[in-house]
Amino acid sequence: MTASLLEQLIEAFRVLPGVGQKTAQRMAYHILERQREGGARLSAALAEAIEHIRHCERCRDFSETDVCAICASASRDAHQLCAVETPADRLAIEQATEYRGLYFVLQGRLSPLDGIGPRELGLDRLAARLAEGEVQELIIATNPTVEGEATAHYLAQLARQHGVRPSRPTHGLPLGGELEYADRGTLSHAFGSRSEVP
Amino acid sequence: MTASLLEQLIEAFRVLPGVGQKTAQRMAYHILERQREGGARLSAALAEAIEHIRHCERCRDFSETDVCAICASASRDAHQLCAVETPADRLAIEQATEYRGLYFVLQGRLSPLDGIGPRELGLDRLAARLAEGEVQELIIATNPTVEGEATAHYLAQLARQHGVRPSRPTHGLPLGGELEYADRGTLSHAFGSRSEVP
Ligand SMILES: [Zn+2]
Ligand SMILES: [Zn+2]
Repeated sequence: MTASLLEQLIEAFRVLPGVGQKTAQRMAYHILERQREGGARLSAALAEAIEHIRHCERCRDFSETDVCAICASASRDAHQLCAVETPADRLAIEQATEYRGLYFVLQGRLSPLDGIGPRELGLDRLAARLAEGEVQELIIATNPTVEGEATAHYLAQLARQHGVRPSRPTHGLPLGGELEYADRGTLSHAFGSRSEVP
Repeated sequence: MTASLLEQLIEAFRVLPGVGQKTAQRMAYHILERQREGGARLSAALAEAIEHIRHCERCRDFSETDVCAICASASRDAHQLCAVETPADRLAIEQATEYRGLYFVLQGRLSPLDGIGPRELGLDRLAARLAEGEVQELIIATNPTVEGEATAHYLAQLARQHGVRPSRPTHGLPLGGELEYADRGTLSHAFGSRSEVP
């Protein structure tokens, strides 16, 4: 008997990560009862973002332009390339460290069981990038999880194949933790004291 | 350096209940990376719902029409009126019990510290409804929380003022728990065995 637009809205909220039926219901009621203005803003922001945000051709991070601001910047050091799993990781490093090189955003990590292989992470493009010869060091900042470590291993091999030195930020990152949740100090230290991958 | 549409989207997600900065970021990335279609559906569903869903003039539940389907139904027993805190509670009762009376949705509970008093819960309209003389029993199905109990006490007095018998579903509802999370059996039993408020 509940209005079908309401059911559609509840169902639509379930597309969000970690949102089940009860949470979706709660979100729909909250918007309709207390936050119609905020709901309208969310609706517009979603439509705008989906229409205009694509991936940077160089680093695969989200971007409104063909090449993102960092990749397009002349003041970044093109000899260093830092591979991260997500845009959030890139943002965390950018905010917490003095790193002035470039990035490559994997948008995931190797996970064969989920069908995520080298192609899904754009590693063909990364290989082409390394082959260009400008990159001298590949800083591998994947997360210290099992899949993150496997991805790091793969990336280190890829770097060596192209004569690029692979390195990893080491000290301080808690084992099993997610990089994006590391505090700024830990992250900054780990980044500054990175070690070459043997 | 992150695209400003992305920042706007992350900020917009924070309007949802229980969603902080990290969760909002995660939602935005998830939509952009894996669920653009679902995101577009959510955007459209939000816009549609906000434009077309309002409150039923009789029961205050969400409705796309002036009077909702239950209130408009000729097959419901107009002698019984059940007061619930939220549309989710009404839905839970409707799905789990044999109740065939009508509803009144408070859209909240008395909470003076939050500025939620009788007016915010539409109790003037409820009083007018009780004064019409058709309702014989007011089933008070607020949650067994401190505020829910205070609301129940207020509603029972209101009922008596209009010569209407107040009752509450009693047995089985876990103390301190939320009605909407009760399992069907418990809720059905509690509803069937309700006791008159002394
Ligand atoms: Zn870029
Ligand atoms: Zn109604």
